[in-house]
Amino acid sequence: MTTPSQHASPFIDPVKLDKLAETAIKIGLQLQPGQDLVLTSPVSALPLARLVVEHAYKAGAGLVTPIFTDDHITLSRYLHGRDAGFDRAAGWLYEGMAKAFSNNAARLAIRGDDPALLSGQDVTAAARADLAYFSAYKPAQDKIQNFDMNWTIIVYPDLAWAKQIFPGEDDDVAVAKLASAIFSISRVDVGDPLANWTAHNAQLHSRTEWLNGQRFRDLHFGGPGTDLTVGLADGHLWIGGATTARNGVTCNPNIPSEEVFTTPHAYRVHGHASSTKPLSCRGAVIDEIFMRFDGGRVVEASARRGNDVLQNLLDSDEGTRRIGEVALVPHSSPVSQSGLLFFNTLYDENAASHIALGQCYSQCFVEGASLSRDQIQAQGGNMSVNHIDWMIGSGGIDVDGIDDAGQRAPVMRNGEWAY
Amino acid sequence: MTTPSQHASPFIDPVKLDKLAETAIKIGLQLQPGQDLVLTSPVSALPLARLVVEHAYKAGAGLVTPIFTDDHITLSRYLHGRDAGFDRAAGWLYEGMAKAFSNNAARLAIRGDDPALLSGQDVTAAARADLAYFSAYKPAQDKIQNFDMNWTIIVYPDLAWAKQIFPGEDDDVAVAKLASAIFSISRVDVGDPLANWTAHNAQLHSRTEWLNGQRFRDLHFGGPGTDLTVGLADGHLWIGGATTARNGVTCNPNIPSEEVFTTPHAYRVHGHASSTKPLSCRGAVIDEIFMRFDGGRVVEASARRGNDVLQNLLDSDEGTRRIGEVALVPHSSPVSQSGLLFFNTLYDENAASHIALGQCYSQCFVEGASLSRDQIQAQGGNMSVNHIDWMIGSGGIDVDGIDDAGQRAPVMRNGEWAY
Repeated sequence: MTTPSQHASPFIDPVKLDKLAETAIKIGLQLQPGQDLVLTSPVSALPLARLVVEHAYKAGAGLVTPIFTDDHITLSRYLHGRDAGFDRAAGWLYEGMAKAFSNNAARLAIRGDDPALLSGQDVTAAARADLAYFSAYKPAQDKIQNFDMNWTIIVYPDLAWAKQIFPGEDDDVAVAKLASAIFSISRVDVGDPLANWTAHNAQLHSRTEWLNGQRFRDLHFGGPGTDLTVGLADGHLWIGGATTARNGVTCNPNIPSEEVFTTPHAYRVHGHASSTKPLSCRGAVIDEIFMRFDGGRVVEASARRGNDVLQNLLDSDEGTRRIGEVALVPHSSPVSQSGLLFFNTLYDENAASHIALGQCYSQCFVEGASLSRDQIQAQGGNMSVNHIDWMIGSGGIDVDGIDDAGQRAPVMRNGEWAY
Repeated sequence: MTTPSQHASPFIDPVKLDKLAETAIKIGLQLQPGQDLVLTSPVSALPLARLVVEHAYKAGAGLVTPIFTDDHITLSRYLHGRDAGFDRAAGWLYEGMAKAFSNNAARLAIRGDDPALLSGQDVTAAARADLAYFSAYKPAQDKIQNFDMNWTIIVYPDLAWAKQIFPGEDDDVAVAKLASAIFSISRVDVGDPLANWTAHNAQLHSRTEWLNGQRFRDLHFGGPGTDLTVGLADGHLWIGGATTARNGVTCNPNIPSEEVFTTPHAYRVHGHASSTKPLSCRGAVIDEIFMRFDGGRVVEASARRGNDVLQNLLDSDEGTRRIGEVALVPHSSPVSQSGLLFFNTLYDENAASHIALGQCYSQCFVEGASLSRDQIQAQGGNMSVNHIDWMIGSGGIDVDGIDDAGQRAPVMRNGEWAY
């Protein structure tokens, strides 16, 4: 357990931290004059949270409401709480957030929690707490996943997290290295971050245009430990980079964002896949995952590390045993090229092609905004309280697109775009 | 602007801080096994917030949900926000809190914000922000003021606050002095805090029993600058110290708590009063207040310092021009004997007899739990979005009780109990 300072570490470049905050408001959210903002953040990220708020008000924000979490307080429940409490969640808070989003408040999440916070704690208790949380959070999460309004996620180089990535380094060195990686990967360290992101978004859009033109029926992933055919949902739409939310605001929902992604068909996934990176989930690390799919359903699953967490996860609900997202990321992405394992999904999913167990994005359908929940399911979209990305891409993976006639076209070769 | 550490200052005794947290849970709240808790706190009070959460879980709490505020973020709105934003409030959050309270969540507030945070900022903007906040907060505040559930307030010796009280001292000395005063006044520094509070509650209850037996029609306050007759509401009830909330739990809503208090009649207050201590309100200090009442209404008001804030305050709503509480505190109370001005209402109101502009407590009526809003008003209870205590007691004040026949009985002489 660490109790980091509210002062930014002197090993975090204050100019670049400020640029990250500004980029989050101007590119991540494109926060509109008069628009309210709900900011979620660990207290350990307070220096970045304060800069974000400053840039939000400078951009004309209505009211910024911060909602802080604290790892120490989260852990306290496991150390001192009674068993009956683990099925509780603060539904009143998340229903309130959903209401704020309905009233067009934007949402900015700062992440950077200790990825191993709950390692050593009771896995069943963590699973129950997680399920209660996601069930209670669903009204807010649905509005986020449906892009009802502009939202984005960024990270802060928290000490506990940095020590997970650089366990052998001194505290200051670990934080400095993580900060440097974050600034580079977030494209705020050189040149004009806004121009960098405009160029990057244009590249991602050229990928989605090509993929949307192909109308593939299936994708096939082949490589060491993976031979997986992923059917794509009827009327699926590839998106990536800047996304126009239903309130008309174009946002970059992830900083960084290297992926293009769409909705797979929940009942047309076959074969097996092996993870290429560890997954940080529920405060634990799950590694060397293997899954076999039949008719879209996970029929076999194991992990060499964190297998108990994985099994618990798969038992959350029926939708967790099917996938709701497939994403392509080139092996040459900056996150991948950093050579680091971040134990943080936002970062690691942008290092490798991945699939996600659980809920699909309605935005990833042609005219998704007008589709009902029933229509989305009829077209193959998956529903779940969870959305858990896990990484199957690497420099050793080939991806083919397969059309309705069964014709194959190369999409990626050795982890790089092949067209 | 200060950015205090998340580590408790080494000048704050960790054992006594822990005792304060334990006292808040066991005496302040009497938190029940399985009961949820909503904890509000400045981030600067994180060391105390963490201890409170630990004791809450040890006492069997269901789920503890912390809601943090940050002075830096609050100030950012004034430094960088646009004018149109000052009428906004996070109604979604406070409606959510009200819902949590309806579901029997307890509420613990940690205070300790910088009392002069907004000095120098636009008074009109602060007034608009305050009015929007209190209007939005009203659903939650009503449940607190009606004692629907157990709640309490404690304070943390924050550096910025300490420097207001001890402006000439070094930071560490100021914090150490404030911490020491808080532990002493909160009765956690010597002996068994729980036994200390049991004895103190018994004393306060003997005072309320006597006052309730007298059935006074009016109280008269006389002393330097004050000649004020305060009519008491029909069916008023004196309470003080431990209070049984409507959920059946007996809590101590203020730590410290030296006052016994009841509901005055909103239309039967006459004469004038002068403040005996400064009032910290809306991030500003209001001092040397003078008010004249006629028919219960403030017809003349001035302050030598912060007069603009006071005038703005009185214009909030009609109910802010009438009083909703009258409280008696002996001049020998520990807060008063500390000789300090805390610029914090929880502390300063427990140093001196006071009256409060604005909303009354329905608990301060005989069978208040069964009274409707209309009935409370018919009996003389005041309604407002505000509840602002200001201090009129001192070692120079005499208080008489006057019964229906006009007979006077001494209640306090030279600021001390006279019976």
